[in-house]
Order: sequence, then structure tokens, then C-alpha cells
Amino acid sequence: MGLDGVTGATEEQVRRDDRAHVFHSWSAQGLIDPLPIADALGSYFTDYSGKRYLDFSSQLVNVNIGYQHPKLVAAIQEQAGRLTTISPAFANDARSEAARLITELAPGDLTKVFFTNGGAEASENALRMARLHTGRHKVMAAYRSYHGATAGAIAMTGDPRRWASEPGMPGIVRYWGPYPYRSAFHAETEQEEGVRALQHLRDLVMVEGPATIAAIILETVVGTNGVLVPPPGYLQGVRDLCDEFGIVMIADEVMAGFGRCGEWFAVDHWGVAPDLITFAKGVNSGYVPLGGVIISERIAATFDQRPFPGGLTYSGHPLACASAVASINIFKEEGIVEHARDLGEDVIGPGLRDLADRHPSVGEVRGLGVFWALELVRDRHTREPLVPFNAAGADAAPMNDFAAACKQRGLWPFIHFNRTHVVPPCTTSADEVREGLAILDEALDVADGFYTGADA
Amino acid sequence: MGLDGVTGATEEQVRRDDRAHVFHSWSAQGLIDPLPIADALGSYFTDYSGKRYLDFSSQLVNVNIGYQHPKLVAAIQEQAGRLTTISPAFANDARSEAARLITELAPGDLTKVFFTNGGAEASENALRMARLHTGRHKVMAAYRSYHGATAGAIAMTGDPRRWASEPGMPGIVRYWGPYPYRSAFHAETEQEEGVRALQHLRDLVMVEGPATIAAIILETVVGTNGVLVPPPGYLQGVRDLCDEFGIVMIADEVMAGFGRCGEWFAVDHWGVAPDLITFAKGVNSGYVPLGGVIISERIAATFDQRPFPGGLTYSGHPLACASAVASINIFKEEGIVEHARDLGEDVIGPGLRDLADRHPSVGEVRGLGVFWALELVRDRHTREPLVPFNAAGADAAPMNDFAAACKQRGLWPFIHFNRTHVVPPCTTSADEVREGLAILDEALDVADGFYTGADA
Ligand SMILES: Cc1ncc(COP(=O)(O)O)c(C=O)c1O
Ligand SMILES: Cc1ncc(COP(=O)(O)O)c(C=O)c1O
Repeated sequence: MGLDGVTGATEEQVRRDDRAHVFHSWSAQGLIDPLPIADALGSYFTDYSGKRYLDFSSQLVNVNIGYQHPKLVAAIQEQAGRLTTISPAFANDARSEAARLITELAPGDLTKVFFTNGGAEASENALRMARLHTGRHKVMAAYRSYHGATAGAIAMTGDPRRWASEPGMPGIVRYWGPYPYRSAFHAETEQEEGVRALQHLRDLVMVEGPATIAAIILETVVGTNGVLVPPPGYLQGVRDLCDEFGIVMIADEVMAGFGRCGEWFAVDHWGVAPDLITFAKGVNSGYVPLGGVIISERIAATFDQRPFPGGLTYSGHPLACASAVASINIFKEEGIVEHARDLGEDVIGPGLRDLADRHPSVGEVRGLGVFWALELVRDRHTREPLVPFNAAGADAAPMNDFAAACKQRGLWPFIHFNRTHVVPPCTTSADEVREGLAILDEALDVADGFYTGADA
Repeated sequence: MGLDGVTGATEEQVRRDDRAHVFHSWSAQGLIDPLPIADALGSYFTDYSGKRYLDFSSQLVNVNIGYQHPKLVAAIQEQAGRLTTISPAFANDARSEAARLITELAPGDLTKVFFTNGGAEASENALRMARLHTGRHKVMAAYRSYHGATAGAIAMTGDPRRWASEPGMPGIVRYWGPYPYRSAFHAETEQEEGVRALQHLRDLVMVEGPATIAAIILETVVGTNGVLVPPPGYLQGVRDLCDEFGIVMIADEVMAGFGRCGEWFAVDHWGVAPDLITFAKGVNSGYVPLGGVIISERIAATFDQRPFPGGLTYSGHPLACASAVASINIFKEEGIVEHARDLGEDVIGPGLRDLADRHPSVGEVRGLGVFWALELVRDRHTREPLVPFNAAGADAAPMNDFAAACKQRGLWPFIHFNRTHVVPPCTTSADEVREGLAILDEALDVADGFYTGADA
């Protein structure tokens, strides 16, 4: 233990200092009791009592490579000894190599990377590029989306996390994306949902004025708001609409990218190349804060002779970039993207469908790769969600009970509204997934207890 | 060299991949040729030809502890081996300890920390807290300021970096801060400047409506826009104004904090406690991206029973927090804050005043700690700046020539508009400072060549 570093505090000290001095994200500070975590390895983390949790949330869906991957840790240690930091104005080997590796993987002519510290800053800078590239102001952003919590990113966000930050940055036009299970378009099939969602988007572009619209932003697969996988043809339809009207297509792959969908980039699943891709999380599993925007040749060229008016002190941070280089190399060596794809097809998908067969409260199973959702309902016919939209307090009790049942049994679930997402690290083994599914099976009995449908 | 990490690329490869794939902050991508940096230690960094530069810029005024401090590197390596990442919802020893150490150092009742990845996100969240705490919308922000480049932070920014991001987030009221050398208030003394700047601020509060104003934000010592040190009484006057009208006082210490001004926090120099302090840069010298907001009891209490509606995936990142813990401990052990104060009083201040005596182009010397500016002018009487406000291209040539003269001699200067800032690491030795001052002495001959004053 280093003399200057973190001293091995007891659980009590960690908790006391946390309660006294740490102000937590998205929380009522007086109503939380954050669990002190002592340790983590692979797909598990451990509290101070020695209780181990299998992580079906990958923290915030970011630890794609699993915890403390020894090769990734070694690469960070090595780069720390070489050079931790250098400003964005210089060239640096770690930064150059990370940019080369990321753009090699990216689709289309996305050949440049603007590095940020995380997802919100990536959203902000994609927005900035789109506005300046087109000379237009408006951005179309989806309901049921999350793009980050800085003023521009939260304005583009289409979930309740935006509400407290309004009125915010002007210029956002909101649209409904495809969501077959709860269609905004009265569609009866996935196919129809895709067609109608595109028609809705086209109608909005028409009435807003195509020449006023800088960008359409979407999460390739909507993450926190439901693992909403786009119907076949939808992304290509958005691509075509953007091409027709000179609108920049921004794919937010902060959560969906880097293996999560069983592809390097989620768009690869549909063979569509957006103009800008935002990334963070899985690029280096959050071992060091890192995000960025991958930029098409055409948009990059806008800033060839004219300065790009955006930046941040840690853009292209060497330690962060070195961790991305190592993470990408490890993903390749260990076939992690393929493993994630296979897990989804062979283990998670079939396993969750099996759970749905036996638990009436499972209204829908959807997903791909290691990116899955169970939509929990009170009634399969009305599709009434197990808890109301944005439920809090007593209203949220059924989901809280479900979560508690998982945790008690050593599974850490991802919970949002009436859904549990199954989003383990991409490196989770088939056996570990099965262990988690067995716990879900028991915990779903709790959810079934709230079921009121006629087929109960 | 790790198999998965960054391979030792040649200068040519680093440059080629940079030009092909890295999109740089604040730059016209086709007009730059970023220097590849091979190495850095203490107050120096080295290019691939082996040329060493004494860094009078601390990169972007962030490497306060100097490059590759061995104890800080060791602490990062150790924490990397313990636990790199855990989500904001948990408690973690590195996060708890960083928060405790930072709040112990902070003035007043600032006892909680919301961690971010950098300065812009700190500005964003301070703004969010002030608005929700007061239930008011408007924020007063200064001309000649920088608060970051996300939509909220850039809207509060009062320098030309904002222009391309307008129209932006609404609700900003702009004021002029004190700047004795170029007074907006026709003041003739520093004392008068302080009094008039406060009167101006009070008048604006009156006509905008005190009950509509959530916050007044200021850089305690304005950084990039000129190392503008507030006149005695100014900060206390702002504090009193805020108290009188229930306005939140936000001190942006992203650049001014953690030793830069020869104090832990710049406000300590004047004994004033703001309601919120934002920090980044010097807290860990940017070895790992980190920033945050230090929060008063009263504002934190607003979010005790009601959720704080903001967050980010890497809030309280363990690796970043561990580096802050180690950096603060090293600062204490090595007396770095005191060293920075002494350097300013005994070496930098006297040395720069000596240069001013011998170089007519030096219009003013100002600063404290390791935070100094030379304002370069064409004429000491008219105070015409050596280059126009926001000069680019040929207009900027005199400053570019000056900078080139420094670099040629092995000094990396910080240049902004018509100023050079003297902002070396806080750990720079007196001899190293003298080495840099000797180079400035030669380079100022270049600036003198553009002098047109009658006393030339
Ligand atoms: C799709 C998406 N975009 C953007 C973000 C914001 O990323 P960050 O929390 O790193 O700012 C997130 C975070 O969850 C996300 O899921
Ligand atoms: C005073 C001040 N505030 C905020 C920022 C923004 O910090 P970052 O670049 O880490 O977003 C800076 C950066 O230079 C700054 O100097």
C-alpha cells in the first residue's frame, strides 16, 4: 500500500466519509445508503462482508471487459509510468494509436476521433459539429432516450431526467422512436412499427422544415430507456432521410457500442454508417474516463480551414487513450465481441425466453448480444407495466422488491422503471450467465406476485 | 512494454496517425502540425528529437505537481491494481477519502463534493445546483471568463470561444469584472476599480431583479482571460451582495485552485467562502481526468429529501479519486502550496518586474503564486495591445513571433491574445524559473520590436 495513496479504510470509515462528504449522482442524499464495495474481479464485485455479487448491470453498462482485467490493468500501470497527461495541442503515441484503432473499426468514412472524458461531452460535441457543419440549428431527438446530463446533452435527452433542467438549450424537436411493444403508432407488427416510425419522422422533418434541421440523433439501440432494438429497415430509413435533406445522422453508441450488441458498433448489425458516432463506456470499460465522437470525412473537412470551436483540457488524455488501445487489443485477442454475440444468441436470449414462458409477469423479452430487457407487467394483455412510468417511492415497490430478491441471492440487477435489463460484462461466461438466470428465475416469483392479469 | 498497450511508435507514425485520425480541440485541423511529445518529467517535456522544453504553461495550467511525479505515478499504479472503476451509486474508499481530504481543505461549510470528469461538467452541475436551490433561473457571468465548452458552461463563458455556440442556453446575464489595467469603469486605481465593479454588479442585480437571479459565477482569479487578480474587497463585496439577495456565489477554481495561487483555494487569499467551488486541473494535475463541485451544507441540504437531477457515469471514479488523494498528500508532505507562494513572492514576481523595467513592450505585470501574466503592448501610454483582441492569422504575428522565440530557446510559453502567462508547475525550482525568465528576457526583444510608443 503506497504511503500517499488510498489507505485501507474500514467499511465503517468508508461509509462515514461517504455519508459526510460524497454527493451522489441522481439521488436524494439523505435517503440513500450506498453499499461500500471492497473488491471486484471479472463479472463479480464484493462488499466488505465478503458477499459477492454477479453483476448483471456491468455497473452502468460500462464494464464490458469485466472488472480488473489483468492485461488492461497492466497496460494502465505501464502507461502511468510512461506519461499520464499531455494537452490536446500536442501529438502523443497513445492518442494517435487509440484514434487509429477506433477509426479502423468504425463503419463508412468515419476516420477521425474527437476525444472527450465521457458520454455527455461526446453528445455536446457531436451536436456542435452538426450545427456548424450544416449551418442549421434544430436537432431532432427521441423520447425515451438518454444522451447525458450537461446542458446540451440533457436537452436532447427524452426521459424524465431532463425535466428538472428545463427550460434548457433551445432548438430540440422531439420524436417518437420505434417501440413495438408500446407503439406510439398503433402498429401491430415490428415491421409496421418501423415503417410508421419512419413516416412520423419524415412528417416531422416536413413540418419543422428540412432546411432548419442540423441533425437527427438516436441511440442505435436505446439503452436505459428499454433496450429498444430498431426494426429491420429503420436505421437505413433514417440514413436515407438524412441523405435526402442534408441532415447529419448521429448514432449515440455510448452504451450500445464496443461489444454490447455483439458487434464493435451497434450500427454494424444493420450495416448502416451514420455521420457521427458517439462513444464512451465500453471503449475502455471505464477503467479511465474516456469518450468521444467518431467523425466522417465530410464533417471533419468543415473544420479543416476553420477552427472547431470546442475543446476540453483532457481531450485525448494519454492514460485514457492507452487504456482504450489495450482494451481494443484484448477484445481482439480474446474474441470478446464474438463471445458477446454468441452469449446473446445461445444463452441469454434462449434463457430469458424460457423465463418468460414460466413467469406471467414477463411481458416481453428483447435484445441482442449482452444487451437484453425483460419488460415486467401486471397484465400481459393490457401490458400495464408492473410499476408506473417514472415511479418513485411506494409506487416503485414491486420493482424494489424484485431487485431486493436478486441482491439477496447475490445478483446485482439493472432496474429502470418496470424493466430489468440483463447487461453483464461481455466477458461473462455461459455458466455465470446461467447462474444469474437461475437467480432471476427465483426473483421473478416476486414480480409474479404483483400480477393481476386474468391468466395469473 | 506491454503486449496490449501502446507500442513504441516512431515520431513519424505518431505524427501520421495524429494527422489522419485525431481531431484536435479549438483548431482548424488542416492548419496545425501538433508536436509529438515523447517524454516528460518534472517541469520539462521532450520531443522526439530530444529537445527539452521548460514548461511555463503547465500544459493547460493543470500540471501543478509537475510531470510524472514518482509518488503520484506509484499511487495510480497501485490503485489500478486494486480497483479502477465502480459506479457512482456505491461507496468506495478512494472516493470517500478524496471527498474528505478536499472538504477538509475547503473554506466555510463546504463539506460535500460532487465529482465530475473535468471543469466543464463542474460548471454545469454548479449551475444546476444553484438554480434548483434558489428556484431561480438567471445566472450572472463575467465577460473575460472561461467556464468550459459544454452547452451550459460555454453559455456562462465570457470570451470568444462562446461565439460559435450561440444562441445557446438562455438565462445568462453578463457583467464586467474588475480589470484595473483596462477598466470598464474608468477607474484610475485598483481600489476604485474594485468599488466601481461592485457598484456595476449591484446595479445589474437591481435592474435584472434580485429574485430572478440564481447565481453569480466568477473565476476567483480570472485565468486564461488574463490572470486578473481581484482588488482587495471585491470578493467580499460579491459575497455580501449574494447574502443580501439570496444569490448563490460560485467560485470557479478549475484553474486558480490547488496551489496555483499559492493557496489551496484561491479564495483563501482573501478569506472569502463561496457557496460552491468548482475544481479540476490542479486537484490531481490531470494525471487522470477529474473535476468536481464542493458544496455548502445549505445547498447540499436542498437535495437531502429530493433527488439531485444530475449525474455522470464516472462521478467519483476510483482511479481518479485515488490520484487526488495521493496528490493532496504529496502536496502536504512536500510543502508545494507554500513553495508556490514563495516562488511568486521571491522569484517570479520580482523577476517579471525586472523584465518590465527593461522591456517597453511589457505593459503590466500581475499575478500571485505561480499564476502570472505579462500584458504586452505597442504603447505603454495608450496601452494598445501588441495584437488586437482575439487576433488570428497575420494579426497575431507579433505574439506568434514571440512564442517562436521562446520555443526556439527551449521554453514553452502560455500565450493568449496579447499576453504571455507565466504558469509553471507549482513544483518548479527557483533555478528553473530563473532559466525561464532568462529566455523570456531574450524573447521580449522580439516583442519590443513591435513597440511603437514614443518611449521606444
Ligand atoms: C446512450 C448514452 N449516451 C450518453 C450517456 C452519457 O454518458 P456519461 O454518463 O459518460 O456522461 C449515457 C450514460 O449512461 C448513455 O447511456
Ligand atoms: C476557469 C476554468 N473553468 C473551467 C474550465 C473547463 O475545464 P475543462 O477543460 O476540464 O472542461 C477551464 C479550462 O481551462 C477553466 O480554465
